[in-house]
Amino acid sequence: MTNAPTPSATWVGVPADHLFGIHNLPYGVFSTSADPTRRVGVRIGDLVLDAGAVAAVGRDAGLVGDGPDLATAWQTPSLNAFLALGRSAWGTARAWLTEILTDEVHRDGVSPHLHPLADVRLHLPVEVGDYVDFYASEDHASNVGKIFRPDNAALPPNWKHLPIGYHGRSGTVVVSGTDVVRPTGQRKGPNDPAPVFGPSIRLDIEAELGYVVGGATELGSRVSVDEASDHLFGVVILNDWSARDIQAWEYVPLGPFLGKSFATTISAWVTPLEALTGARVPLPGQEDPEVLPYLRGDAFGLEVHVEVALNGTVVSRPEHRVMYWSPAQMLAHLTVNGASLRDGDLFGSGTISGAEKDTRGSLLELTWNGTEPLTLDDGSTRGFLEDGDTVTMTAWAPGPDGTRIGLGEATGTITAAR
Amino acid sequence: MTNAPTPSATWVGVPADHLFGIHNLPYGVFSTSADPTRRVGVRIGDLVLDAGAVAAVGRDAGLVGDGPDLATAWQTPSLNAFLALGRSAWGTARAWLTEILTDEVHRDGVSPHLHPLADVRLHLPVEVGDYVDFYASEDHASNVGKIFRPDNAALPPNWKHLPIGYHGRSGTVVVSGTDVVRPTGQRKGPNDPAPVFGPSIRLDIEAELGYVVGGATELGSRVSVDEASDHLFGVVILNDWSARDIQAWEYVPLGPFLGKSFATTISAWVTPLEALTGARVPLPGQEDPEVLPYLRGDAFGLEVHVEVALNGTVVSRPEHRVMYWSPAQMLAHLTVNGASLRDGDLFGSGTISGAEKDTRGSLLELTWNGTEPLTLDDGSTRGFLEDGDTVTMTAWAPGPDGTRIGLGEATGTITAAR
Repeated sequence: MTNAPTPSATWVGVPADHLFGIHNLPYGVFSTSADPTRRVGVRIGDLVLDAGAVAAVGRDAGLVGDGPDLATAWQTPSLNAFLALGRSAWGTARAWLTEILTDEVHRDGVSPHLHPLADVRLHLPVEVGDYVDFYASEDHASNVGKIFRPDNAALPPNWKHLPIGYHGRSGTVVVSGTDVVRPTGQRKGPNDPAPVFGPSIRLDIEAELGYVVGGATELGSRVSVDEASDHLFGVVILNDWSARDIQAWEYVPLGPFLGKSFATTISAWVTPLEALTGARVPLPGQEDPEVLPYLRGDAFGLEVHVEVALNGTVVSRPEHRVMYWSPAQMLAHLTVNGASLRDGDLFGSGTISGAEKDTRGSLLELTWNGTEPLTLDDGSTRGFLEDGDTVTMTAWAPGPDGTRIGLGEATGTITAAR
Repeated sequence: MTNAPTPSATWVGVPADHLFGIHNLPYGVFSTSADPTRRVGVRIGDLVLDAGAVAAVGRDAGLVGDGPDLATAWQTPSLNAFLALGRSAWGTARAWLTEILTDEVHRDGVSPHLHPLADVRLHLPVEVGDYVDFYASEDHASNVGKIFRPDNAALPPNWKHLPIGYHGRSGTVVVSGTDVVRPTGQRKGPNDPAPVFGPSIRLDIEAELGYVVGGATELGSRVSVDEASDHLFGVVILNDWSARDIQAWEYVPLGPFLGKSFATTISAWVTPLEALTGARVPLPGQEDPEVLPYLRGDAFGLEVHVEVALNGTVVSRPEHRVMYWSPAQMLAHLTVNGASLRDGDLFGSGTISGAEKDTRGSLLELTWNGTEPLTLDDGSTRGFLEDGDTVTMTAWAPGPDGTRIGLGEATGTITAAR
């Protein structure tokens, strides 16, 4: 962590209540019509700083000194090179960005490298290595258990002993705004004599946070809970699109596969973990049972307020602070067997669902497997998603001095099956 | 497919019964002490051709014409650039390699680019995109069902309707010869009151074939069974190391995770699918039930003879021809929901086990979960793997004119948990 001050005033002139003020400074990858090269950008207000370009100016003028070569890392089409530099460089970079955006002396040098957000195209920020999805909300796991496995205990016996997770498809992680083609596949209802083939008729969402990993590790090594912050670069909003009918038929015994692998949407902006210091909260509690020692340590939770809108109607407001397992514990568990980390690995929290119905993060739970449809503002009802539906997830976390840190949005529109 | 002749005689002077004769020509990535740059090599006999170097000579001399730029694709540290060129280029490349290694006129130009196998270092041949593992042997699935789920039907109800698969960890796919650190994690036996933490005590193997994918596809599109050969570049031997105790405790409901993700070993040589034309065999049969139309087509099986040795003792001889599902069906299933393919994607067949005990591809099955230990040639017995144990998988397939096509080897030695 850097000890640099984080002044609240930026010469860019961002309103104090803006979700992308000086305390946020999320990273993304952008291009412009004038320069279609994909490169790293930093959002401030409704502007995007061409971070590599301004770092190159500083470097070429001899202003940057012996620190990490941020210009080179940022003048690439993903955050991966920057992720490889590690925690110390991330802190240096954030302190430097804060300085050039707050000290008036930099205004003339920096201003030419600021682009209006409306003029840029945002791309997938990370070349995803491995993508793992966890299952860390007790209410979500319990709800899914009741719906999918009504004859068993709602919570699997291992659930409170380890953060259950599985690998998803990293090649189909897409950036917010990408259309989602309705997936086709096999399903078999309890009364179907044989499986039926066709477009999914139970297409769903899962509101999650995603954690972007940096500081690659060696095969055979582990990351402890206390070391996890050195590898947790930042946070995105993640929509784990799910075809419930495909999933229900395929997932025993090896887990979800085609019911998930068609698309996973993440927000274009990666908010650094450093920006979320003020959002750290204790976990709800892991006393019964107590967790094994390798899952103990500085296992902070995060207060993040998520909002899920379907065609403009807010259908849920999940609260991330209810999550039973923390991201640091997930990373410790993921590596306890010696699995290595790569820069650009991504893991999801699992659906964020609370005890109250209007804080459930999936339609499966909100409509209880379609049996209690939602009514949207236009009067239409939904059990699951229809073609043309747009789902938009947004989120914010508390920042310093009463400010809010925006986590951008993860949005996608369903297009008809091909 | 190329229509070029494949003469049986190479001026390199390889014995007719050599597993790496002119009909094989597998691709790998190598370096030498004189030139530590990783680049694409082709194995012929006990030599490795620096494929990119010789292609560059041909290109610079104007001999190659307007075909794909193989020199550029091969002078990279993985096969991925070559995989991106697609089926037509793979055929062109194979015809050209066959020509320069059979026509004496090329001897003087090519010879300087041949390195003794003993003098090169072999690296992971592919930068793996997504890694999926299937479960395509009926005997394996049935055996695992009986051992892990004794109260249920041996075969899950979906098993004969779709090739069950799940995503594994692509970042921990390692090349043959890489040591495997014994994984640590949670396990809980039926009589344990709470989970226990420590090194796995049921460390196992799974003998599989792996399929290397090229010719990337767009999100939302599908690959049919008949189109699959355009994306199936080649075959490796794959050892899906498995910690059965970790797996048994964690895998319900989301599938295997840490019980598998610590390491997956593949052979250094990727044998092109074109080299296995003579190994194509009909599938054992999918009449009851008949599979859905999207899984029908030219769904060839492959006759590949696998041998599994533990510390030099052959413990199993799995026969790949028994596999219920074919690689073309796996690829069609994997993409039926619109999931895109990347160059370098890898999928495993699942453990290759036949009906006879000595053709089972895992210790779990060979020792029936450790209850019937194997006796090795040195008189020692094994239920599961001990530290220091070396597992070596080799394989061959029938080639033209009574020749054999070697698939190299996947070997690894267990080192103590850290």
